[in-house]
Amino acid sequence: MGAVTTADRGERAPKQDRSRATRQRLLEAAVACLAEHGWAGSTVSVVAERAGVSRGAAQHHFPTREDLFTAAVEYVAEERSTAIRALFPDGAGDDRQAVVTALVDLYTGPLFRAALHLWVAASNEEPLRPRVTELEARVGRETHRIAVELLGADETRPGVRETVQGLLDMARGLGLANLLTDDAGRRDRVIAQWSQILDRILTD
Amino acid sequence: MGAVTTADRGERAPKQDRSRATRQRLLEAAVACLAEHGWAGSTVSVVAERAGVSRGAAQHHFPTREDLFTAAVEYVAEERSTAIRALFPDGAGDDRQAVVTALVDLYTGPLFRAALHLWVAASNEEPLRPRVTELEARVGRETHRIAVELLGADETRPGVRETVQGLLDMARGLGLANLLTDDAGRRDRVIAQWSQILDRILTD
Repeated sequence: MGAVTTADRGERAPKQDRSRATRQRLLEAAVACLAEHGWAGSTVSVVAERAGVSRGAAQHHFPTREDLFTAAVEYVAEERSTAIRALFPDGAGDDRQAVVTALVDLYTGPLFRAALHLWVAASNEEPLRPRVTELEARVGRETHRIAVELLGADETRPGVRETVQGLLDMARGLGLANLLTDDAGRRDRVIAQWSQILDRILTD
Repeated sequence: MGAVTTADRGERAPKQDRSRATRQRLLEAAVACLAEHGWAGSTVSVVAERAGVSRGAAQHHFPTREDLFTAAVEYVAEERSTAIRALFPDGAGDDRQAVVTALVDLYTGPLFRAALHLWVAASNEEPLRPRVTELEARVGRETHRIAVELLGADETRPGVRETVQGLLDMARGLGLANLLTDDAGRRDRVIAQWSQILDRILTD
Protein backbone atom coordinates (compact mmCIF):
# COMPACT_ATOMS: atom_id res chain seq x y z
CA MET A 1 0.00 0.00 0.00
CA GLY A 2 1.38 3.47 -0.82
CA ALA A 3 4.65 3.65 -2.75
CA VAL A 4 7.87 3.92 -0.81
CA THR A 5 9.33 7.21 -2.00
CA THR A 6 12.16 8.12 0.31
CA ALA A 7 13.55 4.81 1.51
CA ASP A 8 17.06 4.06 0.37
CA ARG A 9 18.06 0.60 -0.87
CA GLY A 10 19.20 -0.43 2.62
CA GLU A 11 15.76 0.22 4.13
CA ARG A 12 13.70 -1.14 1.27
CA ALA A 13 15.40 -4.49 1.04
CA PRO A 14 14.47 -5.74 4.52
CA LYS A 15 10.93 -4.44 3.98
CA GLN A 16 10.68 -6.49 0.79
CA ASP A 17 12.08 -9.49 2.61
CA ARG A 18 9.47 -9.15 5.33
CA SER A 19 6.73 -8.79 2.75
CA ARG A 20 7.94 -11.90 0.93
CA ALA A 21 8.11 -13.84 4.18
CA THR A 22 4.55 -12.79 5.07
CA ARG A 23 3.32 -13.82 1.65
CA GLN A 24 4.99 -17.21 1.99
CA ARG A 25 3.54 -17.80 5.46
CA LEU A 26 0.08 -17.01 4.09
CA LEU A 27 0.49 -19.40 1.16
CA GLU A 28 1.66 -22.26 3.36
CA ALA A 29 -1.11 -21.65 5.89
CA ALA A 30 -3.67 -21.59 3.05
CA VAL A 31 -2.63 -25.00 1.73
CA ALA A 32 -2.62 -26.53 5.22
CA CYS A 33 -6.03 -25.01 5.91
CA LEU A 34 -7.56 -26.33 2.66
CA ALA A 35 -6.13 -29.79 3.26
CA GLU A 36 -7.51 -29.93 6.80
CA HIS A 37 -10.81 -28.09 6.60
CA GLY A 38 -11.79 -28.14 2.93
CA TRP A 39 -12.98 -25.17 0.89
CA ALA A 40 -16.06 -24.44 3.03
CA GLY A 41 -13.86 -24.06 6.13
CA SER A 42 -11.14 -22.05 4.43
CA THR A 43 -11.54 -18.28 4.47
CA VAL A 44 -8.98 -15.47 4.27
CA SER A 45 -9.57 -14.72 8.00
CA VAL A 46 -8.91 -18.29 9.09
CA VAL A 47 -5.70 -18.40 7.05
CA ALA A 48 -4.53 -14.98 8.29
CA GLU A 49 -4.98 -16.10 11.88
CA ARG A 50 -3.15 -19.36 11.25
CA ALA A 51 -0.27 -17.47 9.64
CA GLY A 52 -0.15 -14.91 12.46
CA VAL A 53 -0.88 -12.05 10.03
CA SER A 54 -3.58 -9.37 10.26
CA ARG A 55 -6.59 -9.72 8.00
CA GLY A 56 -5.72 -6.39 6.38
CA ALA A 57 -2.18 -7.52 5.58
CA ALA A 58 -3.54 -10.77 4.13
CA GLN A 59 -5.92 -8.81 1.90
CA HIS A 60 -3.11 -6.54 0.80
CA HIS A 61 -1.31 -9.58 -0.58
CA PHE A 62 -4.43 -11.40 -1.83
CA PRO A 63 -7.47 -9.22 -2.51
CA THR A 64 -9.88 -12.15 -2.87
CA ARG A 65 -10.32 -15.63 -1.40
CA GLU A 66 -9.84 -17.07 -4.92
CA ASP A 67 -6.55 -15.19 -5.30
CA LEU A 68 -5.22 -16.58 -2.03
CA PHE A 69 -6.09 -20.22 -2.54
CA THR A 70 -5.17 -20.56 -6.21
CA ALA A 71 -1.85 -18.80 -5.50
CA ALA A 72 -1.30 -21.16 -2.57
CA VAL A 73 -1.83 -24.34 -4.57
CA GLU A 74 0.39 -22.99 -7.36
CA TYR A 75 3.14 -22.00 -4.93
CA VAL A 76 3.27 -25.39 -3.25
CA ALA A 77 3.09 -27.18 -6.62
CA GLU A 78 6.17 -25.18 -7.74
CA GLU A 79 7.97 -26.06 -4.51
CA ARG A 80 7.21 -29.74 -5.12
CA SER A 81 8.40 -29.53 -8.73
CA THR A 82 11.68 -28.04 -7.62
CA ALA A 83 12.04 -30.71 -4.94
CA ILE A 84 11.41 -33.62 -7.32
CA ARG A 85 13.94 -32.29 -9.84
CA ALA A 86 16.46 -31.93 -7.03
CA LEU A 87 15.94 -35.60 -6.10
CA PHE A 88 17.22 -36.69 -9.54
CA PRO A 89 19.82 -34.11 -10.55
CA ASP A 90 21.15 -36.32 -13.35
CA GLY A 91 17.81 -37.76 -14.43
CA ALA A 92 16.67 -41.16 -13.26
CA GLY A 93 19.33 -43.24 -14.93
CA ASP A 94 17.84 -46.72 -14.87
CA ASP A 95 15.83 -46.43 -11.70
CA ARG A 96 12.42 -45.78 -13.19
CA GLN A 97 10.69 -47.17 -10.11
CA ALA A 98 12.27 -44.43 -7.97
CA VAL A 99 10.96 -41.81 -10.41
CA VAL A 100 7.47 -43.34 -10.50
CA THR A 101 7.46 -43.42 -6.68
CA ALA A 102 8.45 -39.76 -6.51
CA LEU A 103 5.81 -38.80 -9.09
CA VAL A 104 3.09 -40.68 -7.20
CA ASP A 105 4.25 -38.98 -3.99
CA LEU A 106 3.19 -35.67 -5.57
CA TYR A 107 -0.40 -36.89 -5.34
CA THR A 108 -0.51 -38.41 -1.88
CA GLY A 109 0.46 -35.55 0.43
CA PRO A 110 -1.27 -32.44 1.80
CA LEU A 111 -0.76 -30.54 -1.49
CA PHE A 112 -2.90 -33.03 -3.41
CA ARG A 113 -5.48 -33.03 -0.64
CA ALA A 114 -5.63 -29.22 -0.81
CA ALA A 115 -5.77 -29.19 -4.62
CA LEU A 116 -8.54 -31.80 -4.57
CA HIS A 117 -10.68 -29.64 -2.28
CA LEU A 118 -10.10 -26.70 -4.60
CA TRP A 119 -10.96 -28.71 -7.76
CA VAL A 120 -14.12 -30.14 -6.29
CA ALA A 121 -15.26 -26.74 -5.00
CA ALA A 122 -14.47 -25.20 -8.42
CA SER A 123 -16.72 -27.73 -10.14
CA ASN A 124 -19.75 -26.08 -8.47
CA GLU A 125 -18.57 -22.50 -7.84
CA GLU A 126 -18.51 -20.19 -10.80
CA PRO A 127 -15.98 -17.53 -9.71
CA LEU A 128 -13.51 -20.26 -8.79
CA ARG A 129 -13.93 -22.51 -11.80
CA PRO A 130 -12.01 -20.68 -14.56
CA ARG A 131 -9.16 -19.85 -12.15
CA VAL A 132 -8.73 -23.46 -11.07
CA THR A 133 -9.15 -24.82 -14.59
CA GLU A 134 -6.32 -22.61 -15.81
CA LEU A 135 -4.16 -23.46 -12.78
CA GLU A 136 -4.75 -27.20 -13.19
CA ALA A 137 -3.71 -27.03 -16.85
CA ARG A 138 -0.52 -25.15 -15.99
CA VAL A 139 0.49 -27.45 -13.13
CA GLY A 140 -0.44 -30.51 -15.22
CA ARG A 141 1.81 -29.44 -18.11
CA GLU A 142 4.73 -28.86 -15.75
CA THR A 143 4.28 -32.25 -14.09
CA HIS A 144 4.15 -33.91 -17.50
CA ARG A 145 7.40 -32.18 -18.52
CA ILE A 146 9.09 -33.37 -15.34
CA ALA A 147 7.85 -36.93 -15.84
CA VAL A 148 9.10 -37.09 -19.44
CA GLU A 149 12.46 -35.69 -18.44
CA LEU A 150 13.06 -37.91 -15.40
CA LEU A 151 11.76 -41.07 -17.06
CA GLY A 152 13.93 -40.43 -20.10
CA ALA A 153 10.84 -40.87 -22.30
CA ASP A 154 11.23 -40.18 -26.02
CA GLU A 155 7.96 -38.49 -26.96
CA THR A 156 8.78 -38.50 -30.67
CA ARG A 157 7.98 -42.24 -30.62
CA PRO A 158 4.28 -43.06 -31.14
CA GLY A 159 2.36 -43.82 -27.96
CA VAL A 160 5.03 -42.60 -25.55
CA ARG A 161 3.24 -39.34 -24.78
CA GLU A 162 0.02 -41.22 -23.93
CA THR A 163 1.96 -43.77 -21.88
CA VAL A 164 3.33 -41.00 -19.66
CA GLN A 165 -0.07 -39.30 -19.46
CA GLY A 166 -1.72 -42.56 -18.37
CA LEU A 167 0.95 -43.01 -15.72
CA LEU A 168 0.18 -39.55 -14.31
CA ASP A 169 -3.55 -40.32 -14.40
CA MET A 170 -2.76 -43.46 -12.41
CA ALA A 171 -0.77 -41.37 -9.92
CA ARG A 172 -3.76 -39.06 -9.49
CA GLY A 173 -6.07 -42.04 -9.00
CA LEU A 174 -3.71 -43.47 -6.38
CA GLY A 175 -3.87 -40.12 -4.59
CA LEU A 176 -7.65 -40.30 -4.54
CA ALA A 177 -7.54 -43.85 -3.17
CA ASN A 178 -5.40 -42.53 -0.31
CA LEU A 179 -7.87 -39.83 0.71
CA LEU A 180 -9.84 -41.76 3.35
CA THR A 181 -7.53 -44.62 4.25
CA ASP A 182 -3.80 -45.24 4.33
CA ASP A 183 -3.36 -47.05 1.03
CA ALA A 184 0.47 -47.20 1.12
CA GLY A 185 0.82 -51.01 1.06
CA ARG A 186 -1.35 -51.58 -1.98
CA ARG A 187 0.09 -48.48 -3.65
CA ASP A 188 3.68 -49.76 -3.37
CA ARG A 189 2.72 -53.03 -5.08
CA VAL A 190 0.91 -51.19 -7.90
CA ILE A 191 3.91 -48.88 -8.35
CA ALA A 192 6.33 -51.82 -8.49
CA GLN A 193 4.28 -53.61 -11.15
CA TRP A 194 3.58 -50.54 -13.27
CA SER A 195 7.21 -49.44 -13.12
CA GLN A 196 8.18 -52.79 -14.64
CA ILE A 197 5.55 -52.38 -17.36
CA LEU A 198 6.76 -48.85 -18.06
CA ASP A 199 10.33 -50.03 -18.27
CA ARG A 200 9.39 -52.56 -20.97
CA ILE A 201 7.39 -50.02 -22.95
CA LEU A 202 9.95 -47.20 -22.79
CA THR A 203 13.02 -49.33 -23.53
CA ASP A 204 11.43 -51.36 -26.34
CA MET B 1 -44.05 -46.75 9.71
CA GLY B 2 -46.26 -49.04 11.81
CA ALA B 3 -46.61 -52.66 10.73
CA VAL B 4 -49.35 -53.56 8.26
CA THR B 5 -51.45 -56.10 10.17
CA THR B 6 -54.65 -56.61 8.23
CA ALA B 7 -53.72 -56.04 4.60
CA ASP B 8 -53.96 -59.07 2.38
CA ARG B 9 -51.29 -59.89 -0.18
CA GLY B 10 -53.23 -58.08 -2.91
CA GLU B 11 -53.23 -54.78 -1.02
CA ARG B 12 -49.70 -55.04 0.35
CA ALA B 13 -47.99 -55.65 -2.96
CA PRO B 14 -48.89 -52.32 -4.64
CA LYS B 15 -48.04 -50.51 -1.40
CA GLN B 16 -44.60 -52.14 -1.43
CA ASP B 17 -44.18 -51.24 -5.09
CA ARG B 18 -45.02 -47.62 -4.37
CA SER B 19 -42.58 -47.57 -1.46
CA ARG B 20 -39.85 -49.06 -3.62
CA ALA B 21 -40.54 -46.54 -6.38
CA THR B 22 -40.35 -43.66 -3.87
CA ARG B 23 -37.08 -44.98 -2.49
CA GLN B 24 -35.63 -45.23 -5.99
CA ARG B 25 -36.72 -41.70 -6.90
CA LEU B 26 -35.03 -40.41 -3.74
CA LEU B 27 -31.80 -42.27 -4.50
CA GLU B 28 -31.63 -40.98 -8.05
CA ALA B 29 -32.41 -37.43 -6.97
CA ALA B 30 -29.72 -37.66 -4.27
CA VAL B 31 -27.00 -38.62 -6.76
CA ALA B 32 -28.04 -35.89 -9.20
CA CYS B 33 -28.11 -33.35 -6.37
CA LEU B 34 -24.65 -34.33 -5.08
CA ALA B 35 -23.20 -34.20 -8.59
CA GLU B 36 -24.65 -30.74 -9.26
CA HIS B 37 -24.45 -28.98 -5.91
CA GLY B 38 -21.84 -30.85 -3.90
CA TRP B 39 -22.18 -32.05 -0.31
CA ALA B 40 -22.73 -28.59 1.19
CA GLY B 41 -25.73 -27.99 -1.08
CA SER B 42 -27.21 -31.46 -0.64
CA THR B 43 -29.69 -31.90 2.20
CA VAL B 44 -32.55 -34.35 2.70
CA SER B 45 -35.05 -31.50 2.10
CA VAL B 46 -33.50 -30.49 -1.22
CA VAL B 47 -33.51 -34.10 -2.41
CA ALA B 48 -37.08 -34.73 -1.22
CA GLU B 49 -38.28 -31.69 -3.15
CA ARG B 50 -36.40 -32.75 -6.27
CA ALA B 51 -37.91 -36.25 -6.04
CA GLY B 52 -41.42 -34.84 -5.44
CA VAL B 53 -41.63 -36.60 -2.07
CA SER B 54 -42.51 -35.10 1.33
CA ARG B 55 -39.67 -34.54 3.78
CA GLY B 56 -41.38 -36.95 6.22
CA ALA B 57 -41.56 -39.70 3.61
CA ALA B 58 -37.90 -39.14 2.77
CA GLN B 59 -36.94 -39.44 6.43
CA HIS B 60 -39.02 -42.59 6.77
CA HIS B 61 -36.81 -44.18 4.11
CA PHE B 62 -33.55 -42.54 5.21
CA PRO B 63 -33.42 -41.36 8.82
CA THR B 64 -30.19 -39.37 8.37
CA ARG B 65 -28.49 -37.36 5.63
CA GLU B 66 -25.58 -39.84 5.73
CA ASP B 67 -28.01 -42.76 5.23
CA LEU B 68 -29.53 -41.12 2.18
CA PHE B 69 -26.36 -40.16 0.36
CA THR B 70 -24.31 -43.29 1.03
CA ALA B 71 -27.31 -45.43 -0.02
CA ALA B 72 -27.66 -43.30 -3.16
CA VAL B 73 -24.05 -43.71 -4.26
CA GLU B 74 -24.20 -47.45 -3.53
CA TYR B 75 -27.46 -47.85 -5.45
CA VAL B 76 -26.19 -46.11 -8.55
CA ALA B 77 -22.87 -47.98 -8.35
CA GLU B 78 -24.83 -51.27 -8.36
CA GLU B 79 -26.89 -50.10 -11.33
CA ARG B 80 -23.69 -49.27 -13.21
CA SER B 81 -22.15 -52.65 -12.34
CA THR B 82 -25.20 -54.45 -13.71
CA ALA B 83 -25.10 -52.29 -16.84
CA ILE B 84 -21.42 -52.92 -17.56
CA ARG B 85 -21.85 -56.70 -17.15
CA ALA B 86 -24.83 -56.55 -19.52
CA LEU B 87 -22.63 -54.81 -22.14
CA PHE B 88 -20.36 -57.87 -22.30
CA PRO B 89 -22.59 -60.89 -21.67
CA ASP B 90 -19.94 -63.34 -22.88
CA GLY B 91 -16.93 -61.51 -21.46
CA ALA B 92 -14.84 -59.23 -23.60
CA GLY B 93 -13.49 -61.79 -25.99
CA ASP B 94 -10.54 -60.04 -27.56
CA ASP B 95 -11.81 -56.49 -27.41
CA ARG B 96 -9.96 -55.32 -24.34
CA GLN B 97 -10.14 -51.71 -25.49
CA ALA B 98 -13.95 -51.84 -25.35
CA VAL B 99 -13.74 -53.17 -21.79
CA VAL B 100 -11.21 -50.52 -20.73
CA THR B 101 -13.42 -47.82 -22.28
CA ALA B 102 -16.47 -49.12 -20.38
CA LEU B 103 -14.49 -49.28 -17.12
CA VAL B 104 -13.21 -45.72 -17.54
CA ASP B 105 -16.80 -44.61 -18.32
CA LEU B 106 -17.69 -45.65 -14.75
CA TYR B 107 -15.52 -42.76 -13.56
CA THR B 108 -16.50 -39.97 -15.91
CA GLY B 109 -20.25 -39.61 -15.40
CA PRO B 110 -22.51 -38.05 -12.75
CA LEU B 111 -22.03 -41.07 -10.44
CA PHE B 112 -18.31 -40.43 -10.14
CA ARG B 113 -18.90 -36.72 -9.67
CA ALA B 114 -21.38 -37.49 -6.87
CA ALA B 115 -19.07 -40.05 -5.26
CA LEU B 116 -16.17 -37.60 -5.44
CA HIS B 117 -18.14 -34.94 -3.56
CA LEU B 118 -19.03 -37.54 -0.94
CA TRP B 119 -15.41 -38.76 -0.57
CA VAL B 120 -14.00 -35.27 -0.26
CA ALA B 121 -16.66 -34.26 2.29
CA ALA B 122 -16.01 -37.49 4.22
CA SER B 123 -12.32 -36.64 4.51
CA ASN B 124 -13.21 -33.71 6.81
CA GLU B 125 -16.54 -34.79 8.36
CA GLU B 126 -16.40 -37.36 11.08
CA PRO B 127 -19.91 -38.87 10.98
CA LEU B 128 -19.58 -39.40 7.24
CA ARG B 129 -16.05 -40.75 7.13
CA PRO B 130 -16.47 -44.37 8.35
CA ARG B 131 -19.63 -44.80 6.28
CA VAL B 132 -17.98 -43.64 3.06
CA THR B 133 -14.74 -45.54 3.76
CA GLU B 134 -16.70 -48.77 4.10
CA LEU B 135 -18.80 -48.00 1.02
CA GLU B 136 -15.74 -47.14 -1.08
CA ALA B 137 -14.09 -50.44 -0.14
CA ARG B 138 -17.20 -52.42 -1.07
CA VAL B 139 -17.74 -50.66 -4.41
CA GLY B 140 -14.00 -50.88 -5.16
CA ARG B 141 -13.93 -54.66 -4.63
CA GLU B 142 -16.93 -55.16 -6.90
CA THR B 143 -15.40 -52.99 -9.65
CA HIS B 144 -12.16 -54.96 -9.38
CA ARG B 145 -14.08 -58.26 -9.71
CA ILE B 146 -15.86 -56.98 -12.82
CA ALA B 147 -12.60 -55.76 -14.37
CA VAL B 148 -10.84 -59.10 -13.80
CA GLU B 149 -13.77 -61.00 -15.25
CA LEU B 150 -14.31 -58.86 -18.35
CA LEU B 151 -10.61 -58.49 -19.12
CA GLY B 152 -10.10 -62.23 -18.75
CA ALA B 153 -7.22 -61.52 -16.36
CA ASP B 154 -5.61 -64.52 -14.65
CA GLU B 155 -4.88 -63.26 -11.16
CA THR B 156 -2.95 -66.39 -10.19
CA ARG B 157 -0.09 -65.04 -12.36
CA PRO B 158 2.28 -62.71 -10.52
CA GLY B 159 1.67 -59.02 -11.15
CA VAL B 160 -1.71 -59.43 -12.84
CA ARG B 161 -3.69 -58.33 -9.79
CA GLU B 162 -1.59 -55.14 -9.50
CA THR B 163 -1.87 -54.52 -13.24
CA VAL B 164 -5.66 -54.49 -12.99
CA GLN B 165 -5.56 -52.36 -9.83
CA GLY B 166 -3.30 -49.82 -11.55
CA LEU B 167 -5.67 -49.72 -14.51
CA LEU B 168 -8.58 -48.88 -12.20
CA ASP B 169 -6.46 -46.23 -10.46
CA MET B 170 -5.78 -44.77 -13.90
CA ALA B 171 -9.51 -44.82 -14.63
CA ARG B 172 -10.16 -42.91 -11.39
CA GLY B 173 -7.46 -40.38 -12.29
CA LEU B 174 -9.00 -39.91 -15.74
CA GLY B 175 -12.31 -39.23 -14.00
CA LEU B 176 -10.69 -36.54 -11.91
CA ALA B 177 -9.09 -34.97 -14.98
CA ASN B 178 -12.58 -34.69 -16.48
CA LEU B 179 -14.04 -32.81 -13.52
CA LEU B 180 -13.49 -29.24 -14.73
CA THR B 181 -13.02 -29.64 -18.46
CA ASP B 182 -14.15 -32.04 -21.16
CA ASP B 183 -11.11 -34.29 -21.37
CA ALA B 184 -12.62 -36.84 -23.80
CA GLY B 185 -10.10 -36.39 -26.63
CA ARG B 186 -7.00 -36.89 -24.52
CA ARG B 187 -8.73 -39.66 -22.56
CA ASP B 188 -9.49 -41.67 -25.71
CA ARG B 189 -5.84 -41.56 -26.76
CA VAL B 190 -4.66 -42.65 -23.30
CA ILE B 191 -7.20 -45.49 -23.31
CA ALA B 192 -6.11 -46.66 -26.78
CA GLN B 193 -2.45 -46.74 -25.78
CA TRP B 194 -2.93 -48.40 -22.40
CA SER B 195 -5.34 -51.00 -23.85
CA GLN B 196 -2.55 -52.07 -26.19
CA ILE B 197 -0.10 -52.24 -23.30
CA LEU B 198 -2.59 -54.21 -21.22
CA ASP B 199 -3.14 -56.63 -24.08
CA ARG B 200 0.59 -57.37 -24.20
CA ILE B 201 0.86 -57.80 -20.44
CA LEU B 202 -2.22 -60.01 -20.05
CA THR B 203 -1.59 -62.25 -23.06
CA ASP B 204 2.13 -62.75 -22.46
